[in-house]
Parts: sequence; structure tokens; C-alpha cells
Amino acid sequence: MTTRIGVTGATGRMGREVIAAVAEREDCEVAFAVNRDPDDDNVAGVDVQPAAEFDALVADREPDAVIDFTGPESALEYVRACAEAGVPFVTGTTGFDDDQRETLQAASDEIPVLHAPNFARGVQALVNVVGDAVQSLEGYDVELVETHHNGKRDAPSGTANRLLEEIEANGDFKDRKHGREGFDPREEGEIGVHVLRAGDITGEHEIVIAGNHEEVRLTHRAEDRGVFAAGAVDAAVWLAEREPGSYDFADVIAS
Amino acid sequence: MTTRIGVTGATGRMGREVIAAVAEREDCEVAFAVNRDPDDDNVAGVDVQPAAEFDALVADREPDAVIDFTGPESALEYVRACAEAGVPFVTGTTGFDDDQRETLQAASDEIPVLHAPNFARGVQALVNVVGDAVQSLEGYDVELVETHHNGKRDAPSGTANRLLEEIEANGDFKDRKHGREGFDPREEGEIGVHVLRAGDITGEHEIVIAGNHEEVRLTHRAEDRGVFAAGAVDAAVWLAEREPGSYDFADVIAS
Amino acid sequence: MTTRIGVTGATGRMGREVIAAVAEREDCEVAFAVNRDPDDDNVAGVDVQPAAEFDALVADREPDAVIDFTGPESALEYVRACAEAGVPFVTGTTGFDDDQRETLQAASDEIPVLHAPNFARGVQALVNVVGDAVQSLEGYDVELVETHHNGKRDAPSGTANRLLEEIEANGDFKDRKHGREGFDPREEGEIGVHVLRAGDITGEHEIVIAGNHEEVRLTHRAEDRGVFAAGAVDAAVWLAEREPGSYDFADVIAS
Amino acid sequence: MTTRIGVTGATGRMGREVIAAVAEREDCEVAFAVNRDPDDDNVAGVDVQPAAEFDALVADREPDAVIDFTGPESALEYVRACAEAGVPFVTGTTGFDDDQRETLQAASDEIPVLHAPNFARGVQALVNVVGDAVQSLEGYDVELVETHHNGKRDAPSGTANRLLEEIEANGDFKDRKHGREGFDPREEGEIGVHVLRAGDITGEHEIVIAGNHEEVRLTHRAEDRGVFAAGAVDAAVWLAEREPGSYDFADVIAS
Repeated sequence: MTTRIGVTGATGRMGREVIAAVAEREDCEVAFAVNRDPDDDNVAGVDVQPAAEFDALVADREPDAVIDFTGPESALEYVRACAEAGVPFVTGTTGFDDDQRETLQAASDEIPVLHAPNFARGVQALVNVVGDAVQSLEGYDVELVETHHNGKRDAPSGTANRLLEEIEANGDFKDRKHGREGFDPREEGEIGVHVLRAGDITGEHEIVIAGNHEEVRLTHRAEDRGVFAAGAVDAAVWLAEREPGSYDFADVIAS
Repeated sequence: MTTRIGVTGATGRMGREVIAAVAEREDCEVAFAVNRDPDDDNVAGVDVQPAAEFDALVADREPDAVIDFTGPESALEYVRACAEAGVPFVTGTTGFDDDQRETLQAASDEIPVLHAPNFARGVQALVNVVGDAVQSLEGYDVELVETHHNGKRDAPSGTANRLLEEIEANGDFKDRKHGREGFDPREEGEIGVHVLRAGDITGEHEIVIAGNHEEVRLTHRAEDRGVFAAGAVDAAVWLAEREPGSYDFADVIAS
Repeated sequence: MTTRIGVTGATGRMGREVIAAVAEREDCEVAFAVNRDPDDDNVAGVDVQPAAEFDALVADREPDAVIDFTGPESALEYVRACAEAGVPFVTGTTGFDDDQRETLQAASDEIPVLHAPNFARGVQALVNVVGDAVQSLEGYDVELVETHHNGKRDAPSGTANRLLEEIEANGDFKDRKHGREGFDPREEGEIGVHVLRAGDITGEHEIVIAGNHEEVRLTHRAEDRGVFAAGAVDAAVWLAEREPGSYDFADVIAS
Repeated sequence: MTTRIGVTGATGRMGREVIAAVAEREDCEVAFAVNRDPDDDNVAGVDVQPAAEFDALVADREPDAVIDFTGPESALEYVRACAEAGVPFVTGTTGFDDDQRETLQAASDEIPVLHAPNFARGVQALVNVVGDAVQSLEGYDVELVETHHNGKRDAPSGTANRLLEEIEANGDFKDRKHGREGFDPREEGEIGVHVLRAGDITGEHEIVIAGNHEEVRLTHRAEDRGVFAAGAVDAAVWLAEREPGSYDFADVIAS
């Protein structure tokens, strides 16, 4: 069976990756592609339509799922249209405020909705195992190092925060420590969080667990944004077969 | 409560580390130390007795456990004496043949016996999580890199083999591949095994799981042999409270 | 001043990257783009012409340099046309046999020709420093690890070979050792060469120098093929100002 | 020829390592060993004398050099005695104030004096090459990560500072940045300095140079303190043949 996917934000950085990721697979195809202000009417051979056509395209092309990497307002317009038409909705859009989250949540009464900050299976794999590792090595020191390109402005990354939550839930940890300088001894139980920004590095996260004359390192590295697009397509193929409800990317991996 | 520990092979490389590891803890002490051919009669302030005194020392000092890093024949003499006296026995000795393993196994009807090739908690932590990681990343390529000092003669290490078994048990893998050279394309499902030997590196193991534009690396590094001694002492303290039977180091960590 | 660049192999993997790399810079532009069998007549807004038009395009558009990532035969046709027209020629094409190398060399009597297997500045930086490092650490063990995507068929990479030559020129080394298995002690002076093939990794090279209770690691990692395209464009801008002769990428960096 | 070495601070952590390092070599031996408050009268078979005997031992045993890892006051007493007796003096003692440095300097009119914060050849090798690497990769972002055991109280390490000076001397860099958190974009030319403190890690320094879709990493790792002791012994053997003057560890490596 072929999963037919509608793509929003089609001329954006992630939209282009999604179209390329769909093209690499034999079990899905692009049903249509839209963009609010398309700076290109063609992405890798796919026609890009204006966002205003979204409702008509959903009605006409009957996609099995929609993948959305846009902004909060656009995403909510798209999800509403999908909810009316009964089309599953995958979104990697970030920056929703609480009201917007509720709107997204409300849509999940009508359709399957999957919202994730990161669609890398490998990040999910780390999230899955880091708790076990920290528990096995109770009392060891934990530090986290994340590295991204020099244009990333916030620190630490959302993925780092997700890993930190998982670490903290599995041990007796105290404050997160951002930066050591001068006379600055390590407090027991603190987690050092180190944020490198350099060059064009897509994204690397490393957890260091050290004590007792040994260390364990758990590392994830994205080669390029293609990994996030591929994960979103996996999510869409999976979500096309689900019941209405709210899902996250871990559900895709676990199944 | 203080766990009183008898140490065999006391003037050997690991015996010395065990004595040092006991000294670092407040909850245990050295009950006695022996060596077959002691090249030193004192290790860090502990008198070293001839191995011939072992039975008498067990009777006299009543240790709560014995830790043994010697050779197969010595280890079996020691375990027999412990079985008679009802003293739990931890051994990191390697190189037992099948008959010798059976003798060791037989002793576990009388006393708790714990035999492990590696007493690093961190290695155990990797063994615990690598299967999960490989399953979450089904279809990705797996390669293993292990690095030891230039005096290590066998390849790959016992720990690498343990990790490889765990990987193979959790995915659809084919042959292990040792070395690529010339026109040598990767076969699907093969696991590349890479053995570095350099300098004085105590021991490093890294599992690389890569695919779909991303990679996960799980790494263990021993700082020095102290980690193995510390783990053996942990095992002894734990084993002192157990029923007769055969245990491995995973049981210590899991508890 | 704007450097106007002709691009061959324009619809190939590297040709596309070169066109993108030119677009990112303000000091150069694409003069024309050709491909022998174009599977696309437009790459990122640049018209792609048939290779048969190459001579006419050189005459008409008067490029300041040509960048070529094709095959040996195509490359030689292009370099001959450039030699006649007096246009500097940068090529990253590989696989030339000895006769073909001579033809390439002969062209450098007429025009500046730069041929390089790798246009990453960082690889060149490693080549520049690895000899110093190896000399400072005389007597230490050296091992090299290189990692590429699972589709790379030859081992080790050309870049690894270049690094190995530099290492060997700066110390008293013996054989290269590809793979260790079973009872396989390290011979003094051997260099272990380890080839990982996994996932989509663009290319990583690591030199390990270990001895005397310490280790130094020198590592290069390409994030994506863009680094090679950017280096080729650097080379073209630089070569446009040179006298006829044969150059390599180190000359570009050194200047 | 055998270099006969006097060892101060003989029962301290580094003193013990120095005695072990001398024992591993055939070209030198311990002439005598002293300690101010010896908590042991024997280190690995070497008698330890009270520090009050130092002058007498120098006169009597006529060492070819002295190696000192003590405190500033002790070190100055020892260097004065060496200056009077004409014995070369190697010291890894840290924490000298300016007056004390002058006293040390003054001694170098009489005898060869070598003072170094770090006796690892590999650190010196990095110092030697990092400037070249940074120059070859002008305009790339540079970040430094250093990792030590959780008992180290100052940040960053003296070795990190030495590497940073070398980096800054070879490029157009601005402030050092210690820790990023919240909205905290990278300023052009800043050098991120990241200090990990975890477990028992002896010492690791990594320089990351990234830009233009690639990255270079230069890393040093000490396996254990033995590397520093071995370097101090190298320095002593070398210094025994020198003229009076002030030397540093780079001179030993360069020769």
C-alpha cells in the first residue's frame, strides 16, 4: 500500500527534506505540497501550491496523512482543516504557546495527531536507554555535551533538555551547572551541561557517566537534516493507520 | 557491618589493586592475603602469606568472602577450600577449560560462587542497554571498535565478544568482519569488528550504530585496572549475603 | 572582482554541490554548466548545456576557471579545450591511469592545473600537522581509523592513504596492518588501519598516537559533501590568478 | 651512562610515580629519596629519608639531577641546595607566587632549572601543532573542552590555558566564553571553553575547529599520572647534560 502524504511548508528547509525523503521510499508518495509564500513553484519535481488551496487539496487529493514543518499559526490552520477532513497530522513545528497546544490537543479528538520536537530514531533510542544506564551506574557523575552549528541561538537544545529530564528522573541529581570558571569545585549530584556552537554541525549530543575508574559515553549525531525528515515520514506512514488521539515519536519507534 | 575479605594472588597486578580497593572502603577490610610465590611479603601494609597457608587462614580468620585473580589451577584449589569452609568465592580468573568450569560449577552447590570476565559496572551497563539500542535502530549498520594496550595479544577482547553476542541476539546480523582492504564492499548485516592496539590504553569499547542520516555510539572506557578491582570488591560484599549458587556480575548490578 | 566559473558534470552529485557552493559566495558566479548526459536541464536555477557545447561555451563565456568532477575521459577532453583557450582547470576527478595523468600534466604547460583527491581544508590541515605530531611522539604506536558510508567500496580511502604516507615519512614505521583476529600480537612499528563502513557517514579520519601513558588523537570529519565543493571553489578562485603549472590543494591553503 | 636522580616528595602521589618511572628505565636510577613528613619509609624498595637530610644526601650521593613535586616553599629550599651543589633541578611544583618565581629564576644562573606545569609529551605535541591547524583553518570556530576528575577545583586547567594562549596567538579571536545558557548566540571570534568534571578521569583536552561543513579535533588524553612522571624523568636525563639556565619542557621534546 502506498501512503499518500500532503506536505506543508514545502519550500522551507525541512519541507524540502520531507519531499526528498518521500521520494526515496517506494511505499509513499507526495499527494500535494503547499507553502504560504512559496519562493519556488517546484521542489524536486513536485508542484508547490499556495497555502490558500490547502482545504481544496485535502478534499480533492485525499491524502493519508499530512506532514507539517511550519510555524505555530500555520500549523493550527492546517490541523483544523485536517480535523474536519479526518486526515492524520504529523507536526515538527516548535514554539507553540499553551493555548496553541490546547488547540492542537483538541484536534486529536477528531484525528490522530503526532507532535515531536525531534524525529531522529537515534535520539529516541538514547532517551530509551539513558535511564537504564544512569540507574546501573548510580552515584556516578553525569555531564552532558551538546554541539550545534554556530547559528543556533538557544542553549541547551530541546533534545538536550529531553535527555536531561530522562537522566534526572532516574537518579538523585541536583542542579544543572552551566559553565565552570575559576575556583569552582563540582557539587555532588550536579549535572554539568556544556553547549558547543561551531561551524555547520547539524547536531550532536553526548552523555558522559563517569565514576569508579571508568566512564560510559552515550552519543547521538545527526549527519544532516535528512534524518529528521525520514523520521517524520516514518511517523506519517505509521499514523495513517491509527485511531484519533495524541501520539509522540516514541510510539512510532516502539511499535 | 564490615565484610572481611581474603585475597589470593596478592602480589599480582590485580591482587594489588584489590587490596588497594578494599583499603578505600570503610565497609570492608582484608582478612588475609596469600600468594603462591610471593615476590613481596607486604602489599600496602598488608602481610602476604604463602598460598600453602590458605586453608589454615580461612579456618583461623573466618573471612566473609574470598577474591581470586590467579590462574585456573590455583583458583580451583582455593575454591575447593572455600567450599569446605562455607566461604563465598569471587573469581576473575580466566582461561578455565571445560573440566575446570565444571569443578567451579560443582563448588556452587556448597557456596555462592561468582565468576566474571570483567568487573566493570560500566561494561555491564553497556551490555544491559545495547540490545535495546540495536532493536530501536533495526536495519542500521553496526560496527564495534575496541582498543587496548600494545601488549594484549588476543583479538578481539572477551568484553568485545560479550557485547557482540548481545548485539547478535537482538537483530538480524550475519558474519563478523575483521578488517577491510582493497575492493571490499560492506555486506548487508555484517558487523565490522576493529581491534586497535596502542600504547598503555587500559581498555575502550565502542559500538557504532549508523543509518538513516544519523549515528549512535555507546562507549565504555576503563581509566585503569582499579575499576575491575572495585567491581570485584562490590561483588564480594554482595556475595557474602547470598545463598549457595552460581552468580555473575550482572546479578550484583541488578540488585 | 568576480571569478566566473564553468562547471562540468553539473547534474552529478559533486557538480550540484559546486553550483550551490558558488551561489553562496559573492565573489564568484557560474559562467556556464555542462553535463555529458544531463538528467536535468536546470540545477538550482542554472541552465545545464550538453557537453558537446563545452568548447563553444568556453569561447563565448570566457570563464576565469573551470571546475570538473567527472570521469577520467571527460576530464581530459575538458582540460584539452581549456588548455587551448587558456582557462585554468580544477579537477577532483579520480581514477586516472598513468597515461591519463601525463596528459593532465602536459596541459599544465599551457594553463594552471590543480588536481586534488580531496578539497577539504581540514584534511589538508591534518596532513600539515600529522608529521610534526608523529615526530614529537617518536616511538609511540600509531593507528588510523577511517569511517565512511556503507556504499563506499574501496578501503582504505584515498585520504587515509595520503595521511598514512605522511605518517610513514616522519617515523620508523613498518607494515600497515589491516584487521587483527585471534592470537595476533602487535608488531613493533606496524600501523593498524581500520576501515568502518556504516550508515550515511560522509567521511571521518582519526589518527591515534599512543604511548607512555598518554594518547593524542587527530580527527577530521566532513559534515557533508559541501566541504569538498567549497574547497574546489576556493581552488578555482585562487587558480584564476596563477601562472601555468601543476598545483595541488596544499598550495591554495598555504597561500 | 646512568643518570642518578634524587627524588623529593617521595611519598607523595607524584613522588611515588617518579620512583616507579625511574625503575622502568635502564638508563637511570634513584640516587636517594626524601620527604618532609614521610608517611612511609620505603617506596617500591627505595628508602625514604627525612627532608632535613637533603643537603647531606646531595653531598654524599652526588646525584646528576633532582626531580621535585612538592610545594613552593619546599621546592625553593631544595633548589637553593642544588644551586650550591651544582645539581640540575627539575620541578613540576605549582603555585609559586612572583617572588618565589624570581628565586627559582635566580637559581638558574648557577644550575640548569626546568620548571613545567605539565610533563606530557603529547600535550607538548598539541601545543606544537595547534597554531598551525588554527592558521590553516582561519575563520573557523574554535571551542575547547577539558575533562578532569571530580576533585579538581580550578577551571579551566593550566594545560587548557596554555593551549588557549597558543590558539589566540595564531588567529583573530575575541573573548573566551565560559558556559552558554538561554538565548545566547555565538559571537564571532569567541572561543567556547567547556570544563567537565567527572569521576576519576586523569585529564583530557580537546580542541574543536569547525567551519565550512567540516571539523578538525585535536585531542590529548593522559591514561594516568605515570605520563607526567615519565616526562619528568626524561627532563632530568636531558637536563643533566645542560648548561646553567632556565628551560621548559618544550626544549626537551625539541631536542
